[in-house]
Amino acid sequence: MKIFSATIATLMFMTIGCKNSPPVPKPLTHQPVKRVGMVTGLKPEKLAYYKQLHASAWPGVLNKISECNIHNYSIYLKEIEGRYFLFSYFEYTGTDFEADMKKMAADSVTQRWWKETDPCQQPLPDAASQGQIWSTMEDVFYAP
Amino acid sequence: MKIFSATIATLMFMTIGCKNSPPVPKPLTHQPVKRVGMVTGLKPEKLAYYKQLHASAWPGVLNKISECNIHNYSIYLKEIEGRYFLFSYFEYTGTDFEADMKKMAADSVTQRWWKETDPCQQPLPDAASQGQIWSTMEDVFYAP
Repeated sequence: MKIFSATIATLMFMTIGCKNSPPVPKPLTHQPVKRVGMVTGLKPEKLAYYKQLHASAWPGVLNKISECNIHNYSIYLKEIEGRYFLFSYFEYTGTDFEADMKKMAADSVTQRWWKETDPCQQPLPDAASQGQIWSTMEDVFYAP
Repeated sequence: MKIFSATIATLMFMTIGCKNSPPVPKPLTHQPVKRVGMVTGLKPEKLAYYKQLHASAWPGVLNKISECNIHNYSIYLKEIEGRYFLFSYFEYTGTDFEADMKKMAADSVTQRWWKETDPCQQPLPDAASQGQIWSTMEDVFYAP
């Protein structure tokens, strides 16, 4: 509706050419949501502890996730032929992903949380070679 | 606001006890969103075709997904030690998941789509034993 109104206002301005017309409003621009899927391994001996941690995640960690514009952050667990994998999905709604990730990494509560979770995880070779825990997956389909 | 109005109406009814008061509206109840994560294998020789199909998915398939109350349906691809896996995430916003899945399965365009996609996929043992393509994963964490 905003875009439609702006178009009408532009047309009116062009047609009537009134000097006192208010400035034509810019059409709304929405920041597209960045959707991310990631995967990592989970050590079998840490299965129970990892689930327990995440079943009652620390409020400070949850707040920081939200503050850093990460939403709908979901982690799923699957055993595939005797090995455990974690899959995550989240939506990033901010404007500077790198900056928000640095902000999260600088948070002391999040750092303490990662001290608990990192030893549970078994990064895949591509993540491990970069000193990361999670590997980014390739996005092949999206239906809104 | 609806809940607030209902509370005020209830209080007014209890206090004033007017016989002609309209029926107190029920508070709104929101259907919680069901979030689902699934995984399946992808045959290496079908990698390119699967990606090509999903890069320009048929409009009839996309429409049916939405009609069946499936939203934010995302599929990710990851190679793990020489094998390919597909991970999907979606949100179900309807009230009868089973019925909506039956509706989707009865759609002729979706059936033709699955004739293309099913032979690309390599179900994990637990899905295969039930005649399914995708295995449901265990939900271990959610941050809104």
